[in-house]
Amino acid sequence: MPEIVPLEWTGDSLRILDQTKLPQEQAVIVARSPNQVVEAIKGMQVRGAPALGVAGAYAMALAVKAVDTLDVPKMQSYLKEMAKQVAEARPTAVNLRWAVERVLRSAMGAHSMADLRTRVDTEAITIHREDVAANRRMGALGAELLPAEGTVMTHCNAGALATAGYGTALGVIRAAWEKSRKLKVIANETRPLLQGARLTAWELVQMGIPTTLVVDSAAGSLIARGEVDCVIVGADRVAANGDTANKIGTYTLAVVAHEKGVPFYVAAPTSTVDMSITTGAGIPIEERPPEEVTEWGGRRIAPKGVGVRNPAFDVTPARYITAIITEKGIVRPPYEEGLRQVMEGGGA
Amino acid sequence: MPEIVPLEWTGDSLRILDQTKLPQEQAVIVARSPNQVVEAIKGMQVRGAPALGVAGAYAMALAVKAVDTLDVPKMQSYLKEMAKQVAEARPTAVNLRWAVERVLRSAMGAHSMADLRTRVDTEAITIHREDVAANRRMGALGAELLPAEGTVMTHCNAGALATAGYGTALGVIRAAWEKSRKLKVIANETRPLLQGARLTAWELVQMGIPTTLVVDSAAGSLIARGEVDCVIVGADRVAANGDTANKIGTYTLAVVAHEKGVPFYVAAPTSTVDMSITTGAGIPIEERPPEEVTEWGGRRIAPKGVGVRNPAFDVTPARYITAIITEKGIVRPPYEEGLRQVMEGGGA
Repeated sequence: MPEIVPLEWTGDSLRILDQTKLPQEQAVIVARSPNQVVEAIKGMQVRGAPALGVAGAYAMALAVKAVDTLDVPKMQSYLKEMAKQVAEARPTAVNLRWAVERVLRSAMGAHSMADLRTRVDTEAITIHREDVAANRRMGALGAELLPAEGTVMTHCNAGALATAGYGTALGVIRAAWEKSRKLKVIANETRPLLQGARLTAWELVQMGIPTTLVVDSAAGSLIARGEVDCVIVGADRVAANGDTANKIGTYTLAVVAHEKGVPFYVAAPTSTVDMSITTGAGIPIEERPPEEVTEWGGRRIAPKGVGVRNPAFDVTPARYITAIITEKGIVRPPYEEGLRQVMEGGGA
Repeated sequence: MPEIVPLEWTGDSLRILDQTKLPQEQAVIVARSPNQVVEAIKGMQVRGAPALGVAGAYAMALAVKAVDTLDVPKMQSYLKEMAKQVAEARPTAVNLRWAVERVLRSAMGAHSMADLRTRVDTEAITIHREDVAANRRMGALGAELLPAEGTVMTHCNAGALATAGYGTALGVIRAAWEKSRKLKVIANETRPLLQGARLTAWELVQMGIPTTLVVDSAAGSLIARGEVDCVIVGADRVAANGDTANKIGTYTLAVVAHEKGVPFYVAAPTSTVDMSITTGAGIPIEERPPEEVTEWGGRRIAPKGVGVRNPAFDVTPARYITAIITEKGIVRPPYEEGLRQVMEGGGA
């Protein structure tokens, strides 16, 4: 299977596979400045919490290259400002803030500009590599939760495209598939931007996994009919109590799965866990432009005069989540304790 | 407010407002044969259970005009065959079968061809008039269930366009609005054909009711956030126990509303109630073409090689429904008893 490469670092630019054009076109944006990365993040050319973290880290590396100074404190102060800007490009996915702060911390310890450059580049590349490793580890751990034969439902795209490669929720499905589990996948199309129809379906078809596409509204009904053995999704931010922000529609799926006794799994690296937030109520929910709902390919669908609400994410209370798959172990309720254990470095 | 006229009978043709082109274009299809009506039904140029019933009745009237014979038994036998064809055009909405069978029964009692022509025309026109009256009565009764001030969510289109005029679920909202209730409406866009974004939003904007459009996946989250005071939808078929088939996504909404203690109402004329079916398990669910999901404006969204499930309806178990509003009264659980009462002619 050809590997999907959503982000590629060349040493002085970040090559971003433009996810708004997939699957019809495989176009690459070459970002040479932090602002170009920020624009690609806002425009969702790169999306998915772990991928946003990696892109944010490289935005910091590009920021260092963009300013010609030998004044270390001046550079550090500039990077602090840039970290804020990058983190605010999309407020819900905590990986973005986590990654830029990690790169910033590495820069703050620098003794010279040469040292700072090396530290920042190394940290960004490390974040990138760690994410791929975390995905593969989540895949190996999570695969054990999937049935030997059955149908898995997923929402939005938590695949190779949403990460540095391999995928979180799709990584688990892929790892199980590679262990010869007889799986079928139901991909919810995921309005408004159709990441399920465009990205998840595309990744799964390339892997050769039998995939069925449905509109988001059909998902609950298929769960009710007994056609889904488990649901697995990614996450944009997990609070200390296990409440999980993910793509809009996830909450509803979790409620229906709970009602019908179908296991509901979240696959998220520890970089997505935000121990500074006690519950999901503290997670900021990004509201995106109304045109994503009212227009299609530049053409107006809805009548003039109608208002729009376009929250990009919702929060699924921990009580609906059967388990959270991290690269450090599978966490089960009570999540406060289990998440604390994995975040403190031990296994769950 | 200009009245929306989805169907107009001219005496020898049925003028159908093409709902696939709204709101951008108000085009009318002039059907002069029963087959033209069947094509408009299959193509969803006319849709909504009560409107399908009225269109089906006129298809029978057009069938009588299409055949030049003085042989009454021959005509009756032709109408029997035509009734079957029309009823099968869309299998879930029981109003279609109910209306064509009602017209057929009127024809079966005819003594001469002149008598048959009069009976069939009269019966079709009566079904049309009764539907408008039923809608207005449901509006008056149902309005009492809505809050003096608050937000009502609806799914798909159960408005004037879905009926002979006025609307079922939207008729209730409209009646409450006309009684000066301070209402806002959240309209779910209703993929794949966007009846919410195109039709419901259009009707509500014309009525001057403040309306907010959301993707279907956002509906559950808004209910969870406490932003919805009640949900009201139409129906395509109500079983004897109250289980209700309606547009795909209705089941999921009902589960979330139930989970959060938000009232969930169904507005349906008695022509939508099918006492011959004990529970929702007996309701046939139409599966529509995959292209509705994979294409947009003739352009492919999803990758090749992906399968599709496109059920047009789902079944909401009666236990999630707070009340069913019919033109003969508001029915509350236990539905077996209440529906029997209204169907036998008495009030609930």
